[in-house]
Amino acid sequence: MDLVSQILEGNRLALSRVLTQIENGTPQGQATLDALFPFTGQAHLIGVTGAPGTGKSSLVNQLARAYRAANGQSDPPSVAVVAVDPSSPFTGGAILGDRIRMRDLSGDPGIFIRSMASRGTLGGIAQTTAGVVQAFDAAGFNIILIETVGAGQAEVDIARLAHTTLVVEAPGMGDDIQAIKAGILEIADILVVNKADRPGVENTERALRNMLQLAHPAPRIFQHHGGQTGEVYAARAETDGVETTKEETTPAAVTAEIWIPPIQRTVATEGEGVENLLKLIEQHRAYLLRTGELFQRDRLRFETELEQLLQRILMIRWREAISDDQYQATVELISSRKLSPRQAAFSLVDGDSI
Amino acid sequence: MDLVSQILEGNRLALSRVLTQIENGTPQGQATLDALFPFTGQAHLIGVTGAPGTGKSSLVNQLARAYRAANGQSDPPSVAVVAVDPSSPFTGGAILGDRIRMRDLSGDPGIFIRSMASRGTLGGIAQTTAGVVQAFDAAGFNIILIETVGAGQAEVDIARLAHTTLVVEAPGMGDDIQAIKAGILEIADILVVNKADRPGVENTERALRNMLQLAHPAPRIFQHHGGQTGEVYAARAETDGVETTKEETTPAAVTAEIWIPPIQRTVATEGEGVENLLKLIEQHRAYLLRTGELFQRDRLRFETELEQLLQRILMIRWREAISDDQYQATVELISSRKLSPRQAAFSLVDGDSI
Repeated sequence: MDLVSQILEGNRLALSRVLTQIENGTPQGQATLDALFPFTGQAHLIGVTGAPGTGKSSLVNQLARAYRAANGQSDPPSVAVVAVDPSSPFTGGAILGDRIRMRDLSGDPGIFIRSMASRGTLGGIAQTTAGVVQAFDAAGFNIILIETVGAGQAEVDIARLAHTTLVVEAPGMGDDIQAIKAGILEIADILVVNKADRPGVENTERALRNMLQLAHPAPRIFQHHGGQTGEVYAARAETDGVETTKEETTPAAVTAEIWIPPIQRTVATEGEGVENLLKLIEQHRAYLLRTGELFQRDRLRFETELEQLLQRILMIRWREAISDDQYQATVELISSRKLSPRQAAFSLVDGDSI
Repeated sequence: MDLVSQILEGNRLALSRVLTQIENGTPQGQATLDALFPFTGQAHLIGVTGAPGTGKSSLVNQLARAYRAANGQSDPPSVAVVAVDPSSPFTGGAILGDRIRMRDLSGDPGIFIRSMASRGTLGGIAQTTAGVVQAFDAAGFNIILIETVGAGQAEVDIARLAHTTLVVEAPGMGDDIQAIKAGILEIADILVVNKADRPGVENTERALRNMLQLAHPAPRIFQHHGGQTGEVYAARAETDGVETTKEETTPAAVTAEIWIPPIQRTVATEGEGVENLLKLIEQHRAYLLRTGELFQRDRLRFETELEQLLQRILMIRWREAISDDQYQATVELISSRKLSPRQAAFSLVDGDSI
């Protein structure tokens, strides 16, 4: 039986083998992924991101446990955990964390954990993560938790792969201007204040609430009828192809369903708040399905993945067509400050004699 | 007088104007940058990176101050600070920090501060930072401090723009497995333990020392003559074009000068340890000049910048040549799981009928 059929039948060893192939970027891995792709689209993808020290890993472990123990279910959902560490570009920094987790969650065949350190470029890690998630999806995992270490752009990009994105904060970090990022809040579907038994939890929650109001001003626009709503009405008129003006439309008529990210306190080490968090995730999935946003998010994800792949293919093809001597001579001209990098790039692409 | 001449003559207003053009990616900005590029190559570029909460901004402020107060100098070096925040992709998160800094350092015409939030793609922020640094360099700034917020791959990439990279840690963060990254240590030329008046400073320093030994095992290889050194000798033989074997070569003969990253404790808020840090930076620059590594680092930086520019140009050119309809139809085929993203990308590039 071939690898694809084995994976579709739930063979974990076959899955492991393909995950390694995907991570190493081998042609077999890519061919298997192509064959698996039509079977994806069933899993719910949950991204978990936040600064180091917020207790993300414990939270992810507890979430996995909670899904497996889902009350009263004789057939609880299967859970895959993908832990991505983009800030570990050189060494296998994820390995240690991996071992600690395995000790914590091993023994349950319904949970599968994969830790990935970044190898090579940033585009590389995002693409590899996408591939690993697709393999888990095709293999029939119902829930896929994608955890990213850190809180930079790379983590944001990876967390965006998900249907539901959790942003984790912890008390004591919110006082630092740099700790809570409006940008990261904007990708949050659910905010988690972990380590909620620590002092300062109210301050953290208040700071988050204030930033949420900046990031999601929509509800306030809909509540008031006067002033500043012009853009909303115009957008509505454009999408519906109907001419409406502020005066002709009541606020109720233009109110689309909007998801306001809720804030959930947890103490992951004690399991506190985790069941509520699970309920919020389920509510968010129901919202995504009801509004059609699930499909939109999938489409956006595929567009991003396609663009990254295209960029890579175009660069490789182009690089193969140009001689090493010409390339190195151009770098030399930059080094000696005779051409700016931009001038050099255009001269290479346009084939100008330089 | 044109903008380029004004900048070369030290006109700060002209410089500000060009920095904004560069950040906005305008054609004028790029043309000015091309014209300024031949005048770059004088400044020493110092990258400062590390996790949030380590006090990087205070340290950068103190370093700027220390350079300006450099003892006994009637003509202290001029300092530019570029604060990059790649984890703030949506909103101008850097603005608040900017204001706090201006209050702290303003009034000294020898210091110029520029805060940048990430706009658009990651490639974008790295490229924009490179451009801003080149403008400062051409404008005659002697020292350029490039500070990145966060500790992800993006920050690592940006810190690599520098000649000397400082990685900042602080006590109390080192206990978390995820806080100290071997990968980030590997780009460090100097390690700074800031907030060194806090408890736990010995633990942090010990953890850093242990990780340094993993990241820089070279000295140990040279000290011992037996075992495990085959690769080093082979590499030497290849680059020199001389056949050498382990037996024919004494360790002394193959010992190149190696920089082992020193660890410096600081209390940035009090200015403690900052002068020593400045001396270490000067020693590192002297080492880079002595060994020719300064030139190598510049070359590597330009190669990276060239590659990023090429990727972008190739993608834009290609995208212009393909119809929107065809592109959207392909995305649709992925959405409906008929083609994998990889199959779709190749079919688009190779123009296969799909």
